Amino acid sequence: MHRHLPAPTVPDLGLETERSVDLCVWTNEEGSRFQPAMMGSGVACGILPLEQALAASDADGVRVADELVRHGYDREPAPDVGLADCYLELHIEQGPILENTGKTIGVVTGGQGIRWYEIALHGEETHAGPVPMALRKDPVPLLARMIDLVHAIGGRDPQARCTIGQVRTHPGSINVVPGRIEMTVDLRHPDEAELDAMHDALMRGCRDLASTHPSIGLDVQLRWHSPVVRFDPSLAKLVRSSAERMGIAAHEMVSGAGHDAFHLARRVPSVMIFVPCRDGVSHNPREYASPEHVAAGANVLLSVVLERAMSRG
Amino acid sequence: MHRHLPAPTVPDLGLETERSVDLCVWTNEEGSRFQPAMMGSGVACGILPLEQALAASDADGVRVADELVRHGYDREPAPDVGLADCYLELHIEQGPILENTGKTIGVVTGGQGIRWYEIALHGEETHAGPVPMALRKDPVPLLARMIDLVHAIGGRDPQARCTIGQVRTHPGSINVVPGRIEMTVDLRHPDEAELDAMHDALMRGCRDLASTHPSIGLDVQLRWHSPVVRFDPSLAKLVRSSAERMGIAAHEMVSGAGHDAFHLARRVPSVMIFVPCRDGVSHNPREYASPEHVAAGANVLLSVVLERAMSRG
Repeated sequence: MHRHLPAPTVPDLGLETERSVDLCVWTNEEGSRFQPAMMGSGVACGILPLEQALAASDADGVRVADELVRHGYDREPAPDVGLADCYLELHIEQGPILENTGKTIGVVTGGQGIRWYEIALHGEETHAGPVPMALRKDPVPLLARMIDLVHAIGGRDPQARCTIGQVRTHPGSINVVPGRIEMTVDLRHPDEAELDAMHDALMRGCRDLASTHPSIGLDVQLRWHSPVVRFDPSLAKLVRSSAERMGIAAHEMVSGAGHDAFHLARRVPSVMIFVPCRDGVSHNPREYASPEHVAAGANVLLSVVLERAMSRG
Repeated sequence: MHRHLPAPTVPDLGLETERSVDLCVWTNEEGSRFQPAMMGSGVACGILPLEQALAASDADGVRVADELVRHGYDREPAPDVGLADCYLELHIEQGPILENTGKTIGVVTGGQGIRWYEIALHGEETHAGPVPMALRKDPVPLLARMIDLVHAIGGRDPQARCTIGQVRTHPGSINVVPGRIEMTVDLRHPDEAELDAMHDALMRGCRDLASTHPSIGLDVQLRWHSPVVRFDPSLAKLVRSSAERMGIAAHEMVSGAGHDAFHLARRVPSVMIFVPCRDGVSHNPREYASPEHVAAGANVLLSVVLERAMSRG
């Protein structure tokens, strides 16, 4: 919805809007083939340098730049995001909250901050038979304490998310005490101060565990972080009031996954609308949203679009 | 040392023994290229069928049968183990017990029984962001309880050995709650009744954990077992008295690793003699035994060999 472009007619509704309405299809939101994810919106918002995006290559060495040429997508410059009045994005929730609360519309007030950690436990590789338990430097018991630590942090408040997605023992033989364990931790929270507190709890816990397990080396690295995103409160209010006006049950929530709207929110007032997906499953052949929920989401989106596009603001 | 073969002269010592002394070099003790390990002794003792050993093939599909022909080792039948008076084997300890106790000779009274388990924890793969902790079916906390269970079993008595050598989360992504965890458990004890009790404790513990974690599937499979080995007490006594006579400090112990002597012990009176290895390290370029310790082991072995070979029994 650009401020300074001529307002087009919306033929189906017979309405003339005060602002133009642009539909965005961002390049490479998923990041499955080319990293980073949310690539097009990152470039458009000035967060990801264009040169870096064009130089990204897939597992076969094919570059984004060449694929854009091959598909004919290299001919137009990125839209000037700064001209927009606002940005709206409709998405399935990718989680079970709407389904569990029996609500149809998620009023997304922001996105969780994310911190990724790589942790290594260094012990001593030994034969499972000859070495008595008391003489081993086995990192496995410390792995149990690390799991308890991380999940205790995840239990401190219902909005916290803590995930140990990867655990791998080395060399990984049935009859060898592992010399090394690698694990990952993913911490998320919609409040940056709370996320800071979770980070501090993790670091403090690791220091305590290192001192009570002196024979095991404990190495913790923060590898990546994505700050908390706050969507525009007046847009969120508009999503809620639009849903209410249509008699659709709405629920305020934050997004756990990343979306293009996270980039856009740093440049223009933005908001997201969620609809339920069955069992909270996504990125999976089982992913499903009912036609009724999709229609409800589209109607709330249209209502918010029209409200903003009709106003001179 | 065959009972019915003519006794040879041992030229270096100027001794004539009552029994012949045979030196055995068993084919494929390690099992690194061809499985199972302890192949030659297994066949000679009638524990492993010859056809199965000959048909074993390596990662490139090369068969033991063809390699034996290629090396010229197919020309003689296996020795008749049943004719032997006794079997003696000298080895580095592959563990730290002798080093830690300051003893030079290990009088090996037997070998640990071994049981191998493959365990799977089945949860539900979900995105690390959108799904609240309370709604997840995350198998990772149960992994911590499994580790505690196994290591508690390992702590019940100093002769018990419990090893979790392999842990792997699936799909193993930093931002995905694992849908499945695979882990292995290796239980060892020199007393079969104690090993039974450890097995029972593992099974009972798993049943209890399954009932307190109803959202996670717990699948435990006993994959392999090797029974406790008891070496011949009179041979062990002879090892000890030989060491004492030479003023070499000896220590009674069991073998944690497998050896050809485990097969032989099922057919003829057998015993093993251990010498220390530095830091208990083996199967590693750091493996080292001092010339003094190797000489002490060889002298005790020679003393026991002569004692048995000189007697008419």
